[in-house]
Amino acid sequence: MYKVYGDMLSGNCYKIKLLMQFLGIEHKWQHVDILVGETNTEDFTKINPNGRIPALEIQEGNYLWESNAILNYLAEGSSFLPNEKLERARVLQWQFFEQYSHEPYIATARYINKYLGLPDERKDEYHSKQEGGHKALRVMNDHLLKNKYFLGETPTIADISLYAYTHVAYEGGFELGQYSNIIRWFGDFEAIDGYIKMDRKNA
Amino acid sequence: MYKVYGDMLSGNCYKIKLLMQFLGIEHKWQHVDILVGETNTEDFTKINPNGRIPALEIQEGNYLWESNAILNYLAEGSSFLPNEKLERARVLQWQFFEQYSHEPYIATARYINKYLGLPDERKDEYHSKQEGGHKALRVMNDHLLKNKYFLGETPTIADISLYAYTHVAYEGGFELGQYSNIIRWFGDFEAIDGYIKMDRKNA
Repeated sequence: MYKVYGDMLSGNCYKIKLLMQFLGIEHKWQHVDILVGETNTEDFTKINPNGRIPALEIQEGNYLWESNAILNYLAEGSSFLPNEKLERARVLQWQFFEQYSHEPYIATARYINKYLGLPDERKDEYHSKQEGGHKALRVMNDHLLKNKYFLGETPTIADISLYAYTHVAYEGGFELGQYSNIIRWFGDFEAIDGYIKMDRKNA
Repeated sequence: MYKVYGDMLSGNCYKIKLLMQFLGIEHKWQHVDILVGETNTEDFTKINPNGRIPALEIQEGNYLWESNAILNYLAEGSSFLPNEKLERARVLQWQFFEQYSHEPYIATARYINKYLGLPDERKDEYHSKQEGGHKALRVMNDHLLKNKYFLGETPTIADISLYAYTHVAYEGGFELGQYSNIIRWFGDFEAIDGYIKMDRKNA
């Protein structure tokens, strides 16, 4: 059985939980607490030398890390990852967009605000994240004007990757009311069979 | 014929050029100058609404963006992208590592130093990039102790993604002499048939 090393307060970990729920994949969840530095221990860096969660244990001693790589691995053969090569590449386009142009703004602002309590020494950094975050939200909102999900009519792991931090962007100070297509997409996404909320208790 | 919108001073664009050389893919190269803001014009954001290069024109009006997504698309069916699902996910693991834990440190420090001339107002940011960059280099160097290329004996697009900015990391102030496995890997990578140097003249 798969084991996931993760923390449900992390959107990157929540992505894995969502896909496993949608596909009914049995797994164990091993809680790793970021806030007390559990990703930087000697034991954990044997699992992921880059010291980050989530990580997936495929078999003992065989680990895969990076949330979006794990999603691609687990979704293979399901409706959440198309077979056709351009569609697969479009899924990746949105996932790389998420990791480079979205997460470093929206997730980082949320982390500074919600988990660190917006300390004075990080206020400048927090405010510096707003412009880039809104740019990413505009790109998403424009795309969703003509697309039900990111790849069209069917949800894929691209939606999972982008939903994870977007739906809690308000916790990083991002007012979403102006992005009506994103709000509509939240509703469609949350109606997928198996959907669960982000659980701060760690399952 | 494919058209690539890119600038050869960008490692992200150089990745596409390298793979096309290795696979002998005919293409046109449309130079887009980042330094004078050509990625932010109204015309260019019709190609990539996120305003970044590289972008690949597959057919007129049909574009793919994000360097690593383009590599996956073009490498499909070649030795640079394995067929087996865990190996494919490992390629992605290293490519997402590159975009999140490597490029924002090493490529950004290089950009501030080499292209902006290390202006006073960005010196703090430049210095703040060093620790994260060295962490990424250590992760790579450790992995390459027992691996000829990132996936083992055969080069893949994971190597292309990581080579692009690592081999010019010194331009961002990163001394590479201490990373002997990376230096060895440079030699193996540069011996691949079709290899070309990063060309600042734009082909």
